[in-house]
Amino acid sequence: MRIGVLGTGIVGRTLATKLAALGHDVMMGARKKDNETALGWAEETGGKAGDFADAAAHGELVINCTKGSVSVEALRQAGAGNLAGKVLMDVSNPLVFTEGELSLSIVNTDSLAESIQRRFHSAKVVKTLNGMNCAVMVEPGRAPGTHSVFLCGNDRDAKADVRALLESFGWQDIIDLGDLTAARGMEMILPLWLKLTNSLGTSDFNFAVMRED
Amino acid sequence: MRIGVLGTGIVGRTLATKLAALGHDVMMGARKKDNETALGWAEETGGKAGDFADAAAHGELVINCTKGSVSVEALRQAGAGNLAGKVLMDVSNPLVFTEGELSLSIVNTDSLAESIQRRFHSAKVVKTLNGMNCAVMVEPGRAPGTHSVFLCGNDRDAKADVRALLESFGWQDIIDLGDLTAARGMEMILPLWLKLTNSLGTSDFNFAVMRED
Repeated sequence: MRIGVLGTGIVGRTLATKLAALGHDVMMGARKKDNETALGWAEETGGKAGDFADAAAHGELVINCTKGSVSVEALRQAGAGNLAGKVLMDVSNPLVFTEGELSLSIVNTDSLAESIQRRFHSAKVVKTLNGMNCAVMVEPGRAPGTHSVFLCGNDRDAKADVRALLESFGWQDIIDLGDLTAARGMEMILPLWLKLTNSLGTSDFNFAVMRED
Repeated sequence: MRIGVLGTGIVGRTLATKLAALGHDVMMGARKKDNETALGWAEETGGKAGDFADAAAHGELVINCTKGSVSVEALRQAGAGNLAGKVLMDVSNPLVFTEGELSLSIVNTDSLAESIQRRFHSAKVVKTLNGMNCAVMVEPGRAPGTHSVFLCGNDRDAKADVRALLESFGWQDIIDLGDLTAARGMEMILPLWLKLTNSLGTSDFNFAVMRED
């Protein structure tokens, strides 16, 4: 599949590398065409690099891996027309760090994913994978046992596409939480996740939803 | 141990009944001394009933099971003097339901538990058990496998007391998240918890934090 990965940070690089290894035709998008991280990634993996608009135009499916604080602006640069009708998988979090404490810039009665959906109404936004370290996203076996990944969104077919992608990463327990309002709860897990990272001394963990079949 | 349980709702009754069954000397506290639920519970279990101040005075350890929206007022009625120096185990959540959607009245940069600690500075507030159905709180076996319960607070000895109580309920994976600021993340898990309840069609589930030993 042609996939556009927006963002050159550790999350974008990790997802793009996994997707390229799975045989997808991946373009990494950055703010500028001459972004050295994106160009270096493309050279290393045989993938492609471009600016946000190039990557969004390239992708049949587009993944938002930009920082939550700049996601809407990055997607505006990607272009609403390049996102229209496409699955827009959002793995970002609206994180703010103030004096060592984490908070969310969008929270409680709204979410980053919903903000993106409102602004880009023709895209099919699916929230997933945001509540874990990116190494675990693409390699669930880094945490032992069977654990869970959530997704939500307003479009059934888009969620099926994302589910298939998650399965190709090795995910087995994929829980559909319903429409995109569930992104609030998915994003609000981050403060707990960070405290756990500190307490456990590792980010190689994930939540399993333990219930009877 | 003498335990005061503040609140006569399903959470308070479930915890009080479990604690009485474990042999503790439990008093259920209500807004008024003649509260029929509290009196009925006492008659049924051989426990005691009183108002918030009676229950707080009775307990060596006090559990806040009142609704988050009224907790500070209930604790004011319980009396700062009756809480001073005691472990105050807070299992409540600052929930607001508006048009079917859940939100939190205290969130992100503050938590209910921290609000309580600020107002009752001589109490030793420990947040725990808030992120699950009350039936699971006292009977972790309702969800399969080993799953996790979190606690946090500013007093080490108070957390040890709460840990012992949790162990007596059958909890095995008890994760100390540090000081009371971790209550933010613990309370912010509720929106995800509610979406999971809806998606799974049951509240007999809990989160396990899957990691290497």
